[in-house]
Amino acid sequence: MTRYVVGVDFGTLSGRAVVVRVADGAEVGTAVHEYRHGAVERTLPATGEALPPHWALQMPSDWVDVLRHAVPAALTGIDATQVVGIATDFTACTFLPVLADGTPLSDVLPDRPHAYPKLWKHHAAQRQADQINALAASRGEAWLPRYGGKLSSEWQLAKALQVLEEDPDVFARAERFIEAADWIVWQLAGVETRNACTAGYKGAHQDGGYPPRDYFEALHTGFGAFLDKTDGPLSPLGGLAGRLTAEAAGWTGLPEGIAVAVGNVDAHVTAPAAQAVDAGQLVAIMGTSTCHVMSGATLADVPGMCGVVADGIIPGLYGYEAGQSGVGDIFGWFAGFASADHDQLTAAAAAQRPGQHGLVALDWHNGNRSVLVDHHLSGVIVGQTLATRPEDVYRALIEATAYGTRTIVETLETAGVPVTEFIAAGGLLKNTFLMQLYSDVLRRPISVIDSEQGPALGSAIHAAVAAGEYPDVRAAAAAMGKVKRAVYTPDDAAADVYDRLYAEYRQLHDYFGRPGGNEVLHRLRALREEVAQ
Amino acid sequence: MTRYVVGVDFGTLSGRAVVVRVADGAEVGTAVHEYRHGAVERTLPATGEALPPHWALQMPSDWVDVLRHAVPAALTGIDATQVVGIATDFTACTFLPVLADGTPLSDVLPDRPHAYPKLWKHHAAQRQADQINALAASRGEAWLPRYGGKLSSEWQLAKALQVLEEDPDVFARAERFIEAADWIVWQLAGVETRNACTAGYKGAHQDGGYPPRDYFEALHTGFGAFLDKTDGPLSPLGGLAGRLTAEAAGWTGLPEGIAVAVGNVDAHVTAPAAQAVDAGQLVAIMGTSTCHVMSGATLADVPGMCGVVADGIIPGLYGYEAGQSGVGDIFGWFAGFASADHDQLTAAAAAQRPGQHGLVALDWHNGNRSVLVDHHLSGVIVGQTLATRPEDVYRALIEATAYGTRTIVETLETAGVPVTEFIAAGGLLKNTFLMQLYSDVLRRPISVIDSEQGPALGSAIHAAVAAGEYPDVRAAAAAMGKVKRAVYTPDDAAADVYDRLYAEYRQLHDYFGRPGGNEVLHRLRALREEVAQ
Repeated sequence: MTRYVVGVDFGTLSGRAVVVRVADGAEVGTAVHEYRHGAVERTLPATGEALPPHWALQMPSDWVDVLRHAVPAALTGIDATQVVGIATDFTACTFLPVLADGTPLSDVLPDRPHAYPKLWKHHAAQRQADQINALAASRGEAWLPRYGGKLSSEWQLAKALQVLEEDPDVFARAERFIEAADWIVWQLAGVETRNACTAGYKGAHQDGGYPPRDYFEALHTGFGAFLDKTDGPLSPLGGLAGRLTAEAAGWTGLPEGIAVAVGNVDAHVTAPAAQAVDAGQLVAIMGTSTCHVMSGATLADVPGMCGVVADGIIPGLYGYEAGQSGVGDIFGWFAGFASADHDQLTAAAAAQRPGQHGLVALDWHNGNRSVLVDHHLSGVIVGQTLATRPEDVYRALIEATAYGTRTIVETLETAGVPVTEFIAAGGLLKNTFLMQLYSDVLRRPISVIDSEQGPALGSAIHAAVAAGEYPDVRAAAAAMGKVKRAVYTPDDAAADVYDRLYAEYRQLHDYFGRPGGNEVLHRLRALREEVAQ
Repeated sequence: MTRYVVGVDFGTLSGRAVVVRVADGAEVGTAVHEYRHGAVERTLPATGEALPPHWALQMPSDWVDVLRHAVPAALTGIDATQVVGIATDFTACTFLPVLADGTPLSDVLPDRPHAYPKLWKHHAAQRQADQINALAASRGEAWLPRYGGKLSSEWQLAKALQVLEEDPDVFARAERFIEAADWIVWQLAGVETRNACTAGYKGAHQDGGYPPRDYFEALHTGFGAFLDKTDGPLSPLGGLAGRLTAEAAGWTGLPEGIAVAVGNVDAHVTAPAAQAVDAGQLVAIMGTSTCHVMSGATLADVPGMCGVVADGIIPGLYGYEAGQSGVGDIFGWFAGFASADHDQLTAAAAAQRPGQHGLVALDWHNGNRSVLVDHHLSGVIVGQTLATRPEDVYRALIEATAYGTRTIVETLETAGVPVTEFIAAGGLLKNTFLMQLYSDVLRRPISVIDSEQGPALGSAIHAAVAAGEYPDVRAAAAAMGKVKRAVYTPDDAAADVYDRLYAEYRQLHDYFGRPGGNEVLHRLRALREEVAQ
């Protein structure tokens, strides 16, 4: 009997299910279900109440609807009895308060904004994040360097502290706080689990535990209770969370009792989908922003990482995560800015030789995640003349993001974490001009994932492991993952020019981005906020 | 009898004649004549021969046509016998080789590009300028600091040296080299004169003489002959060059024998038109670029001036000239870049508060004339985010040019040359938002010339002096010049914000523009030229 697994990828606006053949990873069925409420950023659906600025919530029922609709649709024409397992991946940190049985607190308190899941891009907890980082730094908390010296306002501690500070009753009534990545597994398997990936990257879990209780209490009296509401044994990626419940079998059309894998994160799960299971294989998921995930054999303090987590990507290795907070978003912004078309800009930019436009840009229009970990930075462009055309700037911005990637790769290597292969995934793959440019700037071959559903395929790989079809993720990835090696190779002449331009980028990077240079970008942002008030 | 004078302003593409009443400066007639050949930048009209890059020539017959057509047209309805004098102003350095009788060498050798007048914006003599400056610096030539340490490639020495090096036969056959400002006076009065303004600003004439003959010979054997071809007594501005010849009376319809004033330059002649005749009254002629002219009571070395010349603007005072090589040109470039409309951009920019856009720019898209004297610099903009809109950048660019102006004003004052009044003239006057912004950035009232024909009115004032209607330029300007005082006054709150942004501008200015900062703009330009080859 041919056996299949199902991978379900929960994104920001929709969920995608893919049915994959266990033997070789062939994708035999796929379907997408859009969330009815999308990202809830303006008003609370239950009451119409306006949300404050920078809030982003989500509706748990929308996630379950993906199980009800996308999974059966993806199974069309396939005998569901041949499916042996299901696994999921999720955006993170997407984090919600629940009752002890997993009921979302928003079902109980639908008129309370803080009772809802906070989506990864909820950006209203920066004040809490600043407090978290300042206190951790002053106490010399050992876990802080694992996160580039700063926890993000997007992560669990900031989001939970915001709940406690702004609606202590919701905090008190929350019996558990949980990542959506684990909550969806709870719905499928009927058991609460905690995956090693989100606990480490988003929950500050390091070296066997969360930060100490007195640190939480020092942040806010009573915040120590958060530990009781979130702690629990961690499960390895690819582990068996439990068996599909009758209820979930009813939603999905899958057989009751099949394997349900431990939860995972969309970026991280893409690594095995691209067969990146060994130390040094970096996967860059390139889209509106870029996420870099790579396993390393050793634990090193790498400046500006989003996080380094034991077993965080591949069990048995240290998982490193870095990121660029603006990539495709910057190109999109500029095309709108210049009232120009992406295809025309790309064609005109591609006709140029490196260095011809005379420009260097800093790709910080949406801040800098790695390696500066500073979201208050902004974009810079130098070298414009009266002859500068929109395609010149467009190309310079693409190059800037490539320099940003090179900065991350070099920072890893300088810290003693070798990068042996660069593998690209994500929506920007379709821009072959951009991909060749990255190869030239990096002076490295670029391998390419050979699937358009990287995260869902990665989840399917974990489902196969949880179902016992393969002994581990490495073996499953070898059989089911898909990658084309060295699709792009560097042009030496272009790389020589880019070496010179990259040196300019780095000098400007340090001048505008590091202490001791010029803090003008911070001052301009502060002035902007001062004037806005 | 009501008496009139005629002022004729020779621009880059056309000439304008204005008839002005001597008693009060009323402009009673005006007419424009477009040059038939405009600026000759592509091919030589006589042969169709292609000109090398960066060349710009002009046709002397086009200038005479302005006398033939614009002057009679401006006189329509006026009794020409009431006209008592004529004066002219010209672009500079526009420079031509002639025979001893004033015949343009291009009339004799029409197939030789170097025989033609080189227009001010002929930019093909940079190599010669570099050589001129390097040798002068190495010899410690005393006149060099009067020009910000660098003679421009636009000026007489570079243009003449290019003739000698590239067509020595033309150089040898030129019996005189002369500014067009003086050549046109020769056509009117039949006598060769040399005005103090162009000799000083464009010819390096200082302290009673040109640079020494051995300096010229060290530049190029035989170049000493240039001195013999250009030297001659200097005439003061407003002086009588001679009397209108019968031939010129025939061209113009003016009475033979009326006063013809000494030649002048379009920017400098604008000062008395705006009643800026005393030390400290700075006139900024703001258009595609901006030229600043001001007289000072004392001679000072002011870094980055285009020049300081005794009697260069107003007899008896030291004339200081500075400039910004890109102003309106930068706004025009950006509107095209962003496919946006000036009026819409201005309206949207004007609706903002200072500091709201979070940007600072360096206005070097066409290089920097003052105070850095470096045409290899280029534009910089910092602070862009994904929310940045075209009107934000448009406003930042306007602000940058205002910071550039403030830099010049402060440099003058720091060098001990006080600026007591800021008077604006030129095409940008019509942008009242921009003018108010300049007042806020400068934290000074801005007076405004009250004529749309500043240069031609300035020439008419000089004609009145040459005709003996007033004892000197100061008296004529008081009666005939037109200025509205303090039309714009600074808003203190805006000025406070601009003080902070100006501090950012200056820090970036020195970092990107001065030795010891970051030479990236030079390296990018060099790379651009290397790649283009």
